[in-house]
Amino acid sequence: MKIAGRPACRDNMKLTKTEKDFLQYQRVARMASVDSNGVAHNVPVCPLVDKDKIYFGTERKARKLRNIQANPSVTVVFDEYTEAWSFLRGVMVQGTGRVVNKKEFQELRKKIYSKFSQYESNAPLGERDSVIVEVTPTRKFSWGLE
Amino acid sequence: MKIAGRPACRDNMKLTKTEKDFLQYQRVARMASVDSNGVAHNVPVCPLVDKDKIYFGTERKARKLRNIQANPSVTVVFDEYTEAWSFLRGVMVQGTGRVVNKKEFQELRKKIYSKFSQYESNAPLGERDSVIVEVTPTRKFSWGLE
Repeated sequence: MKIAGRPACRDNMKLTKTEKDFLQYQRVARMASVDSNGVAHNVPVCPLVDKDKIYFGTERKARKLRNIQANPSVTVVFDEYTEAWSFLRGVMVQGTGRVVNKKEFQELRKKIYSKFSQYESNAPLGERDSVIVEVTPTRKFSWGLE
Repeated sequence: MKIAGRPACRDNMKLTKTEKDFLQYQRVARMASVDSNGVAHNVPVCPLVDKDKIYFGTERKARKLRNIQANPSVTVVFDEYTEAWSFLRGVMVQGTGRVVNKKEFQELRKKIYSKFSQYESNAPLGERDSVIVEVTPTRKFSWGLE
């Protein structure tokens, strides 16, 4: 698809209220990280959006985490596909990723578990084998959200 | 989410029949390209999968195209989110992108229009302002597709 019908491009880093409303209820987003050879990794994550930051849990051994530790630049796209292309909408957020510390981990895990009840039973975020990554947005591009 | 429940990792470049079946019917995928500073761009595309290659149309002036022209490495993720996390599934394909030539463009545009009837009316792929990118897979990672 070409995102041409409603070309709402914004290049500053402040998310609008509409964008935040859109982001915070999304159940899945796709997160690209980049290795030292300039090769992207791109996988779905279940995002928590809290106070203008994006969070997601991941395994310590995950490729995306190794990428972020080598190159903190990450790009998360939140979008909804519909066959009625006039109504396509989404936000691409480029930002900087970092692993949160132990105290933050415990607070954020509660919020993530609260949003995604699946975590505790299906894929618990243990402190030993998991981390939470915080993404601070630096740039954005949105469409269809007016 | 952690893709932990059904960790079907494969690192060779040959797509299985199941993976091809899954890919070819998807209506949307997310495509990451990388600029010369190692910053990813990540947006939805409407993919055509034909003979082990992935194709998508884009505007000539699009950022993703500039990225691919500078760094042909692209990563496309095809996935289906469901609240029942045991049934999450998808394929991440890393590959090499190139802009197809004029003859290929005309043949592929027909196939893309055939899969996505929205194109002709909503976002026609004109030869002057659009290109079709071909992605040759080099590496893949899949989950939930057994």
